[in-house]
Amino acid sequence: MRTIKLTLEYDGTGFFGFQRQKKHRTIQSELEAALKKLFQKKITAYPAGRTDSGVHAEGQIVHFRVVSPIPLFKIQAGLNTYLPHEIAVTAIEEAPASFHARFSAKRKVYVYHVLNSKARSPLERFRSFHVPYPLNVSRMKRAARMFVGTHDFRAFESSGGRRRSAVRTVYRFTVEKKGNHIYFTIESNGFLYRMVRSLIGTLLLVGSGRFSVQEVKKTLSEKNRKAAGPTVPPQGLCLKEVIYRTG
Amino acid sequence: MRTIKLTLEYDGTGFFGFQRQKKHRTIQSELEAALKKLFQKKITAYPAGRTDSGVHAEGQIVHFRVVSPIPLFKIQAGLNTYLPHEIAVTAIEEAPASFHARFSAKRKVYVYHVLNSKARSPLERFRSFHVPYPLNVSRMKRAARMFVGTHDFRAFESSGGRRRSAVRTVYRFTVEKKGNHIYFTIESNGFLYRMVRSLIGTLLLVGSGRFSVQEVKKTLSEKNRKAAGPTVPPQGLCLKEVIYRTG
Repeated sequence: MRTIKLTLEYDGTGFFGFQRQKKHRTIQSELEAALKKLFQKKITAYPAGRTDSGVHAEGQIVHFRVVSPIPLFKIQAGLNTYLPHEIAVTAIEEAPASFHARFSAKRKVYVYHVLNSKARSPLERFRSFHVPYPLNVSRMKRAARMFVGTHDFRAFESSGGRRRSAVRTVYRFTVEKKGNHIYFTIESNGFLYRMVRSLIGTLLLVGSGRFSVQEVKKTLSEKNRKAAGPTVPPQGLCLKEVIYRTG
Repeated sequence: MRTIKLTLEYDGTGFFGFQRQKKHRTIQSELEAALKKLFQKKITAYPAGRTDSGVHAEGQIVHFRVVSPIPLFKIQAGLNTYLPHEIAVTAIEEAPASFHARFSAKRKVYVYHVLNSKARSPLERFRSFHVPYPLNVSRMKRAARMFVGTHDFRAFESSGGRRRSAVRTVYRFTVEKKGNHIYFTIESNGFLYRMVRSLIGTLLLVGSGRFSVQEVKKTLSEKNRKAAGPTVPPQGLCLKEVIYRTG
């Protein structure tokens, strides 16, 4: 039995998220359909994390187990032939039997892309969230830094999540401006349901001046879900990287 | 009568190019439909240059003439409401009556984007041409430099063009590599029909080693159309800027 680790890139636009669903097109169903075509048997693909409807990935990690003599480069080429244009296997490797895409993952890195310009951008419309009003980047940077460290993030969780504890460690939360583009990068050992999009929504309130950095701090420490900002739309979000080894 | 100059960004993916066509969806027909809704009359929009089917623009310039008291910012907002998501007016200004988007233009800048990686990229599939084999960037840079200056470019023209002379001046032709991405930037006082895509196709033959820099020089000087490389696909091409004043 081989354990195979795939790196996936996908355009989440036309999908109902990662997880297999009976009536909807998802990344998992497309990937498992490709695996079935290639290996002529039913194979389950396990992701590092499920992504929501409309969310993209540049570095989603998936593993599956199979008994097969097909060499890696042929598996990759075969899957890329069977997969739709919106999904590609960008890397492939053999992993130890103990490897699990989700449980072995130490950290994940997400990037959220805001287009901060008066006019909307046709070329970026599926890859960014358009914010037409001015945003104060240095205020957002200060607010982002407050989330770094180990905190109870329940104020930034949408209902529908499943978890025991809401305590997570954020290792990095940066805000970078390049022309009209603002990139928020967050690295953590785990994310609550829609946590990234709720954090970004809160930072945007800080950036537009409707929230002070102190109010954000209070929201976090008081675990007050009603005080958090709105959840920003999915198309600005991308799962950039999954980290299995640190230090 | 006012002359109004628009800067357009568009995603050319779903269009049969810029120019109005009876049975097909084009940038011009969408723009003129939006102008008609806004001004309640038929208005013709003139572009700096027509772009082909599938070609994008970040800085297409268009002008139209109208008698109307509507202020500029309302014209822009109105057009952006009526235009489909694939097209946006990113800037607007009043121009002198003598202004003509095409005839007043001094130079145009196009960027061609090649994704040079083994695996295809779902997220870049409508914005780049995927080249899976290795490309030698420094050879392509040397070949690109040979096109700078005033030359007869008829070897790099597709049939179907309309022009008196094939002599054009290229002011800049650069090749820039950023990770897996290669950006070709070309600035000229005019382009023959599919000239950019034919030049890039030729440079890719140099990059892959099938053409020498000397052979490219010979193709140009002998005006030998059969010796030029193939025309690369449209989705990598973007009209970046139109220049009206130089020096």
